[in-house]
Amino acid sequence: MFLPDFASLDRFYKDKLLHDVIPFWMKYALDEEYGGFISQLDRDGVPYGKDKAIWVQGRGTWMFAKLYNEIEKKEEWLYASKLGADFIKKYAFDENGRAYFRTTRDGKPINKPWSIFSETFIVIGLAHYAKASGDEEALDLALKTYWKVIDLLQKPELLAESVCTENYSVKTHAIPMIMVSTTQQLREVVSDERFEGIINQHLDEILWVHAKDEIGALLENVRSDGSMLSDPEGRCINPGHAIESAWFCLEEGKRREDKKIIKRALEILDWSLRWGWDDKFGGLFYFVDVAGRPPEQLEWDMKLWWPHTEALYALLLAYSLTQDKKYWDWYTKIHDWTFKHFPDPQYGEWFGYLHRDGSVSLSLKGNLWKGPFHLPRALLYSYLLLKEQ
Amino acid sequence: MFLPDFASLDRFYKDKLLHDVIPFWMKYALDEEYGGFISQLDRDGVPYGKDKAIWVQGRGTWMFAKLYNEIEKKEEWLYASKLGADFIKKYAFDENGRAYFRTTRDGKPINKPWSIFSETFIVIGLAHYAKASGDEEALDLALKTYWKVIDLLQKPELLAESVCTENYSVKTHAIPMIMVSTTQQLREVVSDERFEGIINQHLDEILWVHAKDEIGALLENVRSDGSMLSDPEGRCINPGHAIESAWFCLEEGKRREDKKIIKRALEILDWSLRWGWDDKFGGLFYFVDVAGRPPEQLEWDMKLWWPHTEALYALLLAYSLTQDKKYWDWYTKIHDWTFKHFPDPQYGEWFGYLHRDGSVSLSLKGNLWKGPFHLPRALLYSYLLLKEQ
Repeated sequence: MFLPDFASLDRFYKDKLLHDVIPFWMKYALDEEYGGFISQLDRDGVPYGKDKAIWVQGRGTWMFAKLYNEIEKKEEWLYASKLGADFIKKYAFDENGRAYFRTTRDGKPINKPWSIFSETFIVIGLAHYAKASGDEEALDLALKTYWKVIDLLQKPELLAESVCTENYSVKTHAIPMIMVSTTQQLREVVSDERFEGIINQHLDEILWVHAKDEIGALLENVRSDGSMLSDPEGRCINPGHAIESAWFCLEEGKRREDKKIIKRALEILDWSLRWGWDDKFGGLFYFVDVAGRPPEQLEWDMKLWWPHTEALYALLLAYSLTQDKKYWDWYTKIHDWTFKHFPDPQYGEWFGYLHRDGSVSLSLKGNLWKGPFHLPRALLYSYLLLKEQ
Repeated sequence: MFLPDFASLDRFYKDKLLHDVIPFWMKYALDEEYGGFISQLDRDGVPYGKDKAIWVQGRGTWMFAKLYNEIEKKEEWLYASKLGADFIKKYAFDENGRAYFRTTRDGKPINKPWSIFSETFIVIGLAHYAKASGDEEALDLALKTYWKVIDLLQKPELLAESVCTENYSVKTHAIPMIMVSTTQQLREVVSDERFEGIINQHLDEILWVHAKDEIGALLENVRSDGSMLSDPEGRCINPGHAIESAWFCLEEGKRREDKKIIKRALEILDWSLRWGWDDKFGGLFYFVDVAGRPPEQLEWDMKLWWPHTEALYALLLAYSLTQDKKYWDWYTKIHDWTFKHFPDPQYGEWFGYLHRDGSVSLSLKGNLWKGPFHLPRALLYSYLLLKEQ
């Protein structure tokens, strides 16, 4: 096993971020012709499709602005962020202020709005772009979109159009998780006394409703009243999601110096690593059924890049907060497997989708979900955390 | 390689059908308490979920009626078919005569109607149940549902609610494919002079619009004008779908003694086997990109049971129509791989979802898609075809 050296780990992360991952996206993802980012990129950076995913536009806008705000005032990063922000302003919204899921390369809508995730990624993208650029129009649109989301969440039936909610009323962990993170990101740019209450409400859902002591797991789906569903959806754990959510909560606990939040988030982290780790081949499963029954997802045992990037940062954060050796042990185990299997030695950046045994299933670098986000975010956050140690 | 003996192959199929596969579903899938079929069955037949998929209700009703009509007038098969038919009559439809996708075990709707597949499986189920039982109400409902589908197909925007069809107008092969098969099945029970025209229209779509000579492939998605899309969806081949469609067309060519249809369907079969076959591990891929780019589907290289069952019957039919040795060679290759990897030696029936290398990914026997249909249908059809040779 490769044993990372804690003292030089900040330089390791900075190097991967600035000399491998970001250069790949800067070189291949920027659409100089129509604006925004092209993310359907093959292993070598050649696009295999040119539609624009709005999630990716929001996330990329955020990522490049964050680099500009946190690392260095490089004009090329501000330029990249502006490419995304301008595309979003022009093409992301329908006439009701809802954001599409996908558009053509030149911004014609393809997939109508569903759920709130396009909106939340737009919020963080435009807010941090506004911080980088001083663009007040961008900030106004970020805020308008944020409050629209808050409003939509009061009407869950609007967000579950294909489900008969009177017979099947389910809460999904993705909502409080994204709301904690989105509000945290917005709070870095503007202040509003309502943010704290919104974060508290969603933190409670994660820490005390989706996280179940009786089985020691964070469940993706529970009934509207918080009780457990008896079907496969109710037994579903998404370890990567739970680990990502745990570090959003740890960040909040750290900021508030709130030991109760930190303790509970660490419990979720511990549980999720145990559920997720594959004892046979190593790496983290994509989906697990808490009763050991077959998950619904055909791709359940694949190893995706993002649960691993989330685990790396979550464990560094947990270790820095506790100095507990178990987090360093978990960290080295995940670090070893991750850096052995995901990076592409030939063209740079990471493969995203491996088989259970760690062999590459899809050679692509990006698609409508994988773009300049989870990996560079984890590298940046790990670097910033390690640097302050 | 196991070389099946053609002369005794009819007994082989009859034995698998009646002493392995059908007993599994008869023992575990019938819901005596609420009617219909429970299909979320683990390897050993124990249910891991009890929701009712309407696709499965229609397909199971059809399968048991077909056995009754074609093999033997066994009361238990009529009883099983009636369980499905009664559940459908009571619970499958909304107030507009559209069929739900999923209900609770006791018939409360969960997923609202989408596309037309719930309806088409209801049509074939109720029609063949009516033939078995003489139930005229069932036949009336089958016909009413069929003409409702024909009507819906005139309004494609109703079936693509989440897509901005003015910017992205796509035809999918699943529609003409299911319409050829559904109309063929209905024609076995009732006659209507319009059926021939409807079959012709959809045959033309399969044989001359989705099947593209310039690349030698049947494409799942084309533009509304029939031209090729340049994105990943437009480059998608689903070899199992294409092979299944080929035998629907071969059946039609055989019935009409139409050499042009037979020749074209055989071309599609040849193409699809070549695209689908995995030279490295054997078996048929789930999805392939015609340009060799990464498919969109994470599960693209998994080996699913149904493309293999469809290929077995398609190849027996192709061989019986042509006596061309190449079809027998393909048949033995697919037979060998299929019977080596899919059957569960311990609990009977087949695993449905294997990794690329043939190892079992999901141990389940059924879910909201896998039920008593593709496998027993292929076994039955192969047996009936071989018996008549």
